[in-house]
Amino acid sequence: MTELATLETKHAQLLKDAIQAIHARTFYTPYPEHPKAYAEDADSKGRDAFALRMNEPYTELQVESEKWIGEEVSPYLQTGIGVMYPQLSVEQLISNADGAKSWKDIPAGERAGILIESLERVANRYFEIAYATMHTTGQSFMMAFQASGPHANDRALEAIAMGYEELTRFPNEVDWVKPMGKFDLTLHKNWKAVPKGIGLVIGCSTFPTWNTVPGMYASLMTGNPVIVKPHPKSILPIAIVISELRNVLRENKLNPDIIQLAVDTVSEPVTKQLADNAAITLIDYTGGNAFGDYIESLHKTTFTEKAGVNSIILDSVKDLNAVAQNIAFAASLYSGQMCTAPQNVFVPADGIDAEDGHKTFDEIADAITNAINGIADHPKMGAGTLGGIQNDQTVKRIKDGGNFGGSLMAEGHTVSNAEFEHARVMSLTVVKTGWENKEAYGHECFGPMVFVVKTKDRNHSVEIAADLAATKGAITCSAYCTDAGMQNTIEDKMNSVFTPVSFNFGGAAFVNQHAAFSDFHVTGGNPAGNASFTNPEYINKRFVWVGNRYMA
Amino acid sequence: MTELATLETKHAQLLKDAIQAIHARTFYTPYPEHPKAYAEDADSKGRDAFALRMNEPYTELQVESEKWIGEEVSPYLQTGIGVMYPQLSVEQLISNADGAKSWKDIPAGERAGILIESLERVANRYFEIAYATMHTTGQSFMMAFQASGPHANDRALEAIAMGYEELTRFPNEVDWVKPMGKFDLTLHKNWKAVPKGIGLVIGCSTFPTWNTVPGMYASLMTGNPVIVKPHPKSILPIAIVISELRNVLRENKLNPDIIQLAVDTVSEPVTKQLADNAAITLIDYTGGNAFGDYIESLHKTTFTEKAGVNSIILDSVKDLNAVAQNIAFAASLYSGQMCTAPQNVFVPADGIDAEDGHKTFDEIADAITNAINGIADHPKMGAGTLGGIQNDQTVKRIKDGGNFGGSLMAEGHTVSNAEFEHARVMSLTVVKTGWENKEAYGHECFGPMVFVVKTKDRNHSVEIAADLAATKGAITCSAYCTDAGMQNTIEDKMNSVFTPVSFNFGGAAFVNQHAAFSDFHVTGGNPAGNASFTNPEYINKRFVWVGNRYMA
Repeated sequence: MTELATLETKHAQLLKDAIQAIHARTFYTPYPEHPKAYAEDADSKGRDAFALRMNEPYTELQVESEKWIGEEVSPYLQTGIGVMYPQLSVEQLISNADGAKSWKDIPAGERAGILIESLERVANRYFEIAYATMHTTGQSFMMAFQASGPHANDRALEAIAMGYEELTRFPNEVDWVKPMGKFDLTLHKNWKAVPKGIGLVIGCSTFPTWNTVPGMYASLMTGNPVIVKPHPKSILPIAIVISELRNVLRENKLNPDIIQLAVDTVSEPVTKQLADNAAITLIDYTGGNAFGDYIESLHKTTFTEKAGVNSIILDSVKDLNAVAQNIAFAASLYSGQMCTAPQNVFVPADGIDAEDGHKTFDEIADAITNAINGIADHPKMGAGTLGGIQNDQTVKRIKDGGNFGGSLMAEGHTVSNAEFEHARVMSLTVVKTGWENKEAYGHECFGPMVFVVKTKDRNHSVEIAADLAATKGAITCSAYCTDAGMQNTIEDKMNSVFTPVSFNFGGAAFVNQHAAFSDFHVTGGNPAGNASFTNPEYINKRFVWVGNRYMA
Repeated sequence: MTELATLETKHAQLLKDAIQAIHARTFYTPYPEHPKAYAEDADSKGRDAFALRMNEPYTELQVESEKWIGEEVSPYLQTGIGVMYPQLSVEQLISNADGAKSWKDIPAGERAGILIESLERVANRYFEIAYATMHTTGQSFMMAFQASGPHANDRALEAIAMGYEELTRFPNEVDWVKPMGKFDLTLHKNWKAVPKGIGLVIGCSTFPTWNTVPGMYASLMTGNPVIVKPHPKSILPIAIVISELRNVLRENKLNPDIIQLAVDTVSEPVTKQLADNAAITLIDYTGGNAFGDYIESLHKTTFTEKAGVNSIILDSVKDLNAVAQNIAFAASLYSGQMCTAPQNVFVPADGIDAEDGHKTFDEIADAITNAINGIADHPKMGAGTLGGIQNDQTVKRIKDGGNFGGSLMAEGHTVSNAEFEHARVMSLTVVKTGWENKEAYGHECFGPMVFVVKTKDRNHSVEIAADLAATKGAITCSAYCTDAGMQNTIEDKMNSVFTPVSFNFGGAAFVNQHAAFSDFHVTGGNPAGNASFTNPEYINKRFVWVGNRYMA
């Protein structure tokens, strides 16, 4: 039993450290990212816990319902995992959330304490959540552990800490004394951060907790009850997080419906119905462009992360092979199903300079293709790096994509996974083409697909990458450039279309990774999304400052 | 000649004090609000300066143009003031602004210094600006001096200070070191606050500087070139401010087109053309609902202040006469042409309690009407408090408004102004009516108009006030209530529709006054507007954080 009064003390240091980290933007995590840092039996216990959940109703939310649904399918097993969740009607969910609005009256420090306590509980279940993530998203165990566990918790804590800072930025009350010459005018003033209403957080199928918890915790921290509507194919990981938070709320004699899980199926979705409901005033969304554009068109406060086309600009390198390896790994990780994965590698027609001499366009395309094939074909690394394909449509889209133009350098083929014989694992398709072929590379080709694109020259590469970012959106841009002047040009040009640039990544640095407390994820400035984890705006838009004045 | 390098030092203390005031939210102003605090001959010099401008082209912007236009009319003189302004085409204005985008490369501290220097220059011209404001808006000299002078400068400084704080909130660069077990991964990271583009600031006819400078300085501080498009009937006050800033920019060898004045006429407006232009990414707007709603519907970052219906809730008072006096003055000040002016006074059918006994609804309506008439008919106070009516339509709307229902307690009549015989001064119309008559009081009746509305009971008063705020918008709410429990109810209910409440104002405290550095003006949460002077969101939405990473 956690008492309100003790929570703040218990977690005050964590909150303070997180706020400091947000400002320092140096490395910070309270939860180690490597599974080996945890108890020796944690892995087997987590695996068992997940196995026990399969083919059972998920009762941990303590929600009563006449309707239980679930259609998650493991990309590793190619069978349904059989977990059934209680489905409430949209009206019931809204009514429950409405009944939980007194959450706003809990002081910010206590709200932070309760939310941080839920993260502590989640940390005890990282392994179970990792297996739930693996068997819904197709992520490898390692990625599932890190992304859905410590990295997601970091992002949640970041939202809580930034929220706490914003909420406590102005005094609760002051005596305002204005000298009026012969007398003073004194007013007693107070300020309240009034939450905007009820938050809806719409999850995606590939990162069910990492992309959901920032909005969920940001809306909660700022006093809004929240309804989370995960993708119907990836519910379990976030259901566990929500259950833990509901437990903490219940223990504190608070209404557990401050946080609710909404579930649906692919054939009978409820997301639009929820989003359209007038009681929903805040919407966080991760997913495709079409529905994301619809969400943004609603007259509501929205935070979206949609699709983008991420570019790599190859300008000049030290060691082409090292660069090719880094690019190959960034593109292969979880088969390009990360929103941060690179898709297009822009290379000048006359090649680039390296320390060991000039490299032609074809040599570069070969090096990248070889590196990509090398990962897929590597008996130990291959399956683990590629993970599984979450959605069969992803495979179909690439397989049936027909002629992408240019030369097919590598054709996606099935890769075997020693542990899971039915796993849906596919190697990357690599196409070498010219800049004129924008029809093929000029939009997001979600999944295991890379284009090596020949441009007129280095400036043309930057121009195309910037144009794609401005018109189609971009979450990342990777550049290999050893010339300081050109680095500035690339940085300025890409930043002007609100796209961050990662330069000369090698070794253990990959463009896909955005660290909480340091890297803003998505800038919010280009079509890839209108929000950013976690800048101040991500918090401020969820509540309204209202001041009152009393004659003294 | 002001040098970039010296500016920061010169104004650093002012900036520091302003940031401190924003957080303390106690009284702060660097510029005294009373004209008597300034040089003895400042008034006459300012009056002369204004007189010399009349019937002349306004050349101080140093803008060349083939077309000079101007149609400002003094509400005091009932003649045109004859000042002509250079009109550039929309294309030319946008092209000039586009050519001034390197403003973003000036470091935040230097930008702040330049902008603060412009405020210092403006402070030297408060009297001239006051006369320009009087003779375009109809404000009394005292209000014109305070609102367009020190109070506007306070709001401008507030925007600069909040902007500086937001821009310097995160480090420019850090080395990020992640322990990876056997080695450390080091990335060199930088963060840039990238301005969103070009700002357009659309002014109103009644407060030509006070409502314009917050958005103008907020967009400028965050690195965006700005085009200000004042109301065609009230250009001169802001033209002077813009000229001073252009002077400071020129002295610092910067492009003066970082700030531009756009002018038009009532019959040939250019505002929509500017707002629709794709190069305009930020819009600040003060004005009516119809065009405000249009501005908000654009897929741009917008900051609006539109119309609202401000309520007074009469629940219980100490001294009815004192309360009636305060209400009368708040309603009479500048003839209800302030966006903060109260319009509806809600009174329970069975009256209210006062220290000297119970007061009936009719007694209350009489007391308020008498107090309002007392101000209008007062030979010394009357004309000065009421000021002039800016727009003839305002008079017509009330005169030709026909039957407002209920009883006409006072009918607006012409009030003579001893100094200006042609001044358009009108006393307040007071209507006593029932809550059912929402058709009359349930929308903004801009200008000298007050409704005393009989409600079922105290809770019904709050309910109607809150409903009006939620559906029609409200910028202020005044409440008279001596019962602490009921105060909480009123505060909670009005705050829940994002409306601030001022309790038991008397003496020198008036609900109309929103002090910079302490009172957020407009909350942004109800239909009266989507922005607030000056909360963090007012700044953050004008730029985008973009981070870059370099392999160390």
